[in-house]
Amino acid sequence: MKHGARNKIEATVTSVKKGDIMALAKFKVDTPHEMASVLTVESANDLKLKKGDRVMLVVKAIHVLPVKDA
Amino acid sequence: MKHGARNKIEATVTSVKKGDIMALAKFKVDTPHEMASVLTVESANDLKLKKGDRVMLVVKAIHVLPVKDA
Amino acid sequence: MKHGARNKIEATVTSVKKGDIMALAKFKVDTPHEMASVLTVESANDLKLKKGDRVMLVVKAIHVLPVKDA
Amino acid sequence: MKHGARNKIEATVTSVKKGDIMALAKFKVDTPHEMASVLTVESANDLKLKKGDRVMLVVKAIHVLPVKDA
Amino acid sequence: MKHGARNKIEATVTSVKKGDIMALAKFKVDTPHEMASVLTVESANDLKLKKGDRVMLVVKAIHVLPVKDA
Amino acid sequence: MKHGARNKIEATVTSVKKGDIMALAKFKVDTPHEMASVLTVESANDLKLKKGDRVMLVVKAIHVLPVKDA
Repeated sequence: MKHGARNKIEATVTSVKKGDIMALAKFKVDTPHEMASVLTVESANDLKLKKGDRVMLVVKAIHVLPVKDA
Repeated sequence: MKHGARNKIEATVTSVKKGDIMALAKFKVDTPHEMASVLTVESANDLKLKKGDRVMLVVKAIHVLPVKDA
Repeated sequence: MKHGARNKIEATVTSVKKGDIMALAKFKVDTPHEMASVLTVESANDLKLKKGDRVMLVVKAIHVLPVKDA
Repeated sequence: MKHGARNKIEATVTSVKKGDIMALAKFKVDTPHEMASVLTVESANDLKLKKGDRVMLVVKAIHVLPVKDA
Repeated sequence: MKHGARNKIEATVTSVKKGDIMALAKFKVDTPHEMASVLTVESANDLKLKKGDRVMLVVKAIHVLPVKDA
Repeated sequence: MKHGARNKIEATVTSVKKGDIMALAKFKVDTPHEMASVLTVESANDLKLKKGDRVMLVVKAIHVLPVKDA
């Protein structure tokens, strides 16, 4: 299967904590990988984002979709 | 500054492509790191998600927020 | 009222389960409808997405906003 | 493959329009299906959401992830 | 109509810029208002978030849904 | 630090309620500020969005990221 998303990161589950409705899963990522971000051109300009810059990529946990072989 | 998000990944910009409204930035991530996902307990159960599982973490690029030192 | 979103799907509530902070609502959708997705051109090309393709549209429940007549 | 998301809707691509960075794909959904929404308990209470209610489910197109057999 | 979302902010459009697929709209918000954030308990604890704290609320523009009287 | 997002709103925490996995924080925003929305051109056209329009900006609480000085 192919996914219409730029970020597909291989990971290993380290913990799963279940609440009443929502669960929080943690993963370790051991291998170098690529990531991609879509932002407005205005935001890219404000950041003066250019090749070689060191950045921090912030992602709320709710936006991370785990996919597993059946 | 501290961010109210579970995923904060150090990365290096490899390219920035600007369109009319939106831009696409690419990054390489060289260091092992942790990730976290919030999902419904139902989804966690459907996946039978447990410690040690190998998974793929799918994230649409629009959900990745680059943060840079001023 | 008009909403600045492409997907507006008529549905009937089948269950509501309330936790401490978050609730999970389920719906049935009985009528054929359209949907739309915005993705990067790169992702569309990787998928070789074209008219007539059968796909699965995956949406995390947190991104579904219920709207009800007052 | 199994996805850690509540909404997985079978659909047929009706059009794909590519811009400079982003693309817009349209789909038709012909078969009845279920949907799920996660919202705060406060929002569920404000809506007085209960079994049998007719609602409109609003989803921005950016949150719809197409998945296709390779 | 009632919306199953915590943030509903009255605003006036100041500009609309249309690209090929996506548009960027700007608004001014003149009246004091409330906002709400859902985050993991872990993130709230890391931030030591408590009544009276001054914070910055960061929201990507893609997550803002404009609604207008027909 | 600079954030690659259009909406950065100064606010004061009024309450924090913690559940098992997720927390709900409330804020007051006292100062006039700008906001931005990215939507499809199709949606902007459907709304006939133009300068001077009064709108309501709807944002699910999960999409609001609090950032605090360490």
